[in-house]
Amino acid sequence: MIDNSPRAPRPYCLIGLGLIGGSIMRDVSARGQAVFGYNHSRSGARRAQREGFDVSDNLSETLQRAADEGALIIVATPMHAVASVLDAVAEHAPECGLTDVVSVKRPVYSLVKERGLESRYVGGHPMAGTENSGWGASQEGLFANAAWAVTYDYAAELDEAGRFVSAEWADLFNQVCSLAALTGAEAVPVSVGRHDEAVARVSHLPHVIAEALSIVGDKGGTLAQSLSAGSFKGATRVAGTDPALVRNMVETNATALVPTLDELIVLLQDARDGLARETPVMKDLAEAGNRAYTRMAARTGARRESVSPVRISSRPVMRIHPGAPGWVNQLRQVESLGGRVEVF
Amino acid sequence: MIDNSPRAPRPYCLIGLGLIGGSIMRDVSARGQAVFGYNHSRSGARRAQREGFDVSDNLSETLQRAADEGALIIVATPMHAVASVLDAVAEHAPECGLTDVVSVKRPVYSLVKERGLESRYVGGHPMAGTENSGWGASQEGLFANAAWAVTYDYAAELDEAGRFVSAEWADLFNQVCSLAALTGAEAVPVSVGRHDEAVARVSHLPHVIAEALSIVGDKGGTLAQSLSAGSFKGATRVAGTDPALVRNMVETNATALVPTLDELIVLLQDARDGLARETPVMKDLAEAGNRAYTRMAARTGARRESVSPVRISSRPVMRIHPGAPGWVNQLRQVESLGGRVEVF
Repeated sequence: MIDNSPRAPRPYCLIGLGLIGGSIMRDVSARGQAVFGYNHSRSGARRAQREGFDVSDNLSETLQRAADEGALIIVATPMHAVASVLDAVAEHAPECGLTDVVSVKRPVYSLVKERGLESRYVGGHPMAGTENSGWGASQEGLFANAAWAVTYDYAAELDEAGRFVSAEWADLFNQVCSLAALTGAEAVPVSVGRHDEAVARVSHLPHVIAEALSIVGDKGGTLAQSLSAGSFKGATRVAGTDPALVRNMVETNATALVPTLDELIVLLQDARDGLARETPVMKDLAEAGNRAYTRMAARTGARRESVSPVRISSRPVMRIHPGAPGWVNQLRQVESLGGRVEVF
Repeated sequence: MIDNSPRAPRPYCLIGLGLIGGSIMRDVSARGQAVFGYNHSRSGARRAQREGFDVSDNLSETLQRAADEGALIIVATPMHAVASVLDAVAEHAPECGLTDVVSVKRPVYSLVKERGLESRYVGGHPMAGTENSGWGASQEGLFANAAWAVTYDYAAELDEAGRFVSAEWADLFNQVCSLAALTGAEAVPVSVGRHDEAVARVSHLPHVIAEALSIVGDKGGTLAQSLSAGSFKGATRVAGTDPALVRNMVETNATALVPTLDELIVLLQDARDGLARETPVMKDLAEAGNRAYTRMAARTGARRESVSPVRISSRPVMRIHPGAPGWVNQLRQVESLGGRVEVF
């Protein structure tokens, strides 16, 4: 008898079920897709199991199952655990497609290359989160409307050597973009280097600021706390993040982060010097800061201002056929615009 | 015929109908209290009139009316306009009670004293706002659950000299606390010096940071903007504030702000140096920042965690009878706890 039923869709295998991994599992499951996972902490695994999710606390068994079922493996651990997870992947699931959701991309890509896994790896980073961590903090819909960075360095490297990616890698790129879409996010193609530089500015630097501002605010004691309002709470919220996770992000992205910290410190020092004058003045920073804010807000305008029930993304979109002639140049173009891709 | 009807409640007279003044007018009016006002910009005044509010663009006429009706005058202009408004108050409404909602308190109190108005002045500062300005940005309910700083320096100065405040001043203190309560805010007693020091930490410093971070983020171009998410938006939101208003705040509070900027820069510089090491490390800042955040969040815990439909304030409360023996010491005690007062 010939099996002519349509091929079952590839299941998703999540390694790590914290805030991000857990939220992906909820989204994928809610969309009716097959998903199973592993969690390092047995208590987190048990909580997920009690909610009816297919979760194990045995890494090698989970990866073996991924290999058996041809799953897409999603590494959703903190950066410090990535190397050992990749070792286990190389051992137990050497044929599976592989992606990750770690907040730095160059260090992950280096570990992937060290293990010769780059031909089956497409990096990812969904730009959403809260200050809480662990399975208990995970939620459905966390990634709606968020950017989901998808890296394409492997294709770019081959392209520069005048070569093309395999059909398998093109399909993997497709799968990672589809995963993003499944959660309501938008796939933004980006090289690992430009990713790390950009998130240093817009994610890791805000984390450093949140820590420092929390300390300065707390020094004001109960009165300052009582008088604090939106501007303080907005700027310090992510200081609620587990400090180990913050260190994982900023320490592994230090190369990109240090220059942006230098830029920030120069601006603050100039403001400080202006305010320390006999006639205090902070004209330059207030005006340049507001202009920068306005520019950035204008770019996100459509996302915020739309009154249509159908959300209109402000990110320019390009339809891409992974692996087609010229597609790497298309990705570079979309990247330079911060745009999103739809795959077909 | 003897008029034995109950005395009509004092109307409120708002000078300045921007985000804060306009929102107060909406709240007071919604509670059925008599309120009228003045706006410097004729277009803002017209917009308020079209919405049915009792608004003029003639300052001296408005203050004359306040004098005739025994209104409580609320100065809700930017700091740079306060001196001229106080001159007009001294000329046209020399008997009225006077308060303000300006974000610095020591400079306002100096202007008040220069004009000999301190015996009829109680300063105020509602700790709420948005990044928008003008009447068009005003909204009902803006101050719900917010702290509303109420200054008591005049009473403290008399107390130190072994003297008591007049019944009129005690009544004025009462009125300002009642105004706060009318908007759903909580009256937090504070001296002008401690106010300015606290808001430098939790309000003016976040504004400076928002300007600087906006510039650093914007330098990352369209890609960085596309990848920016909650942590960046939360920390930069108030850079949308009119830069003239930001300058008014930070430049007039420079004495308190410069030392807190120095504290912040030292923390950031230390973090930068740790991250620039061969093995990057940001242990101290991540851990101390999270501890500070946790301490401050614990103090606001009840406000955020309560599931009761009746909001339970986390600010300790003390019932105060303005002018009663020992009340100034009670205020000092409440201030040291960042607590709120209820007047009777």
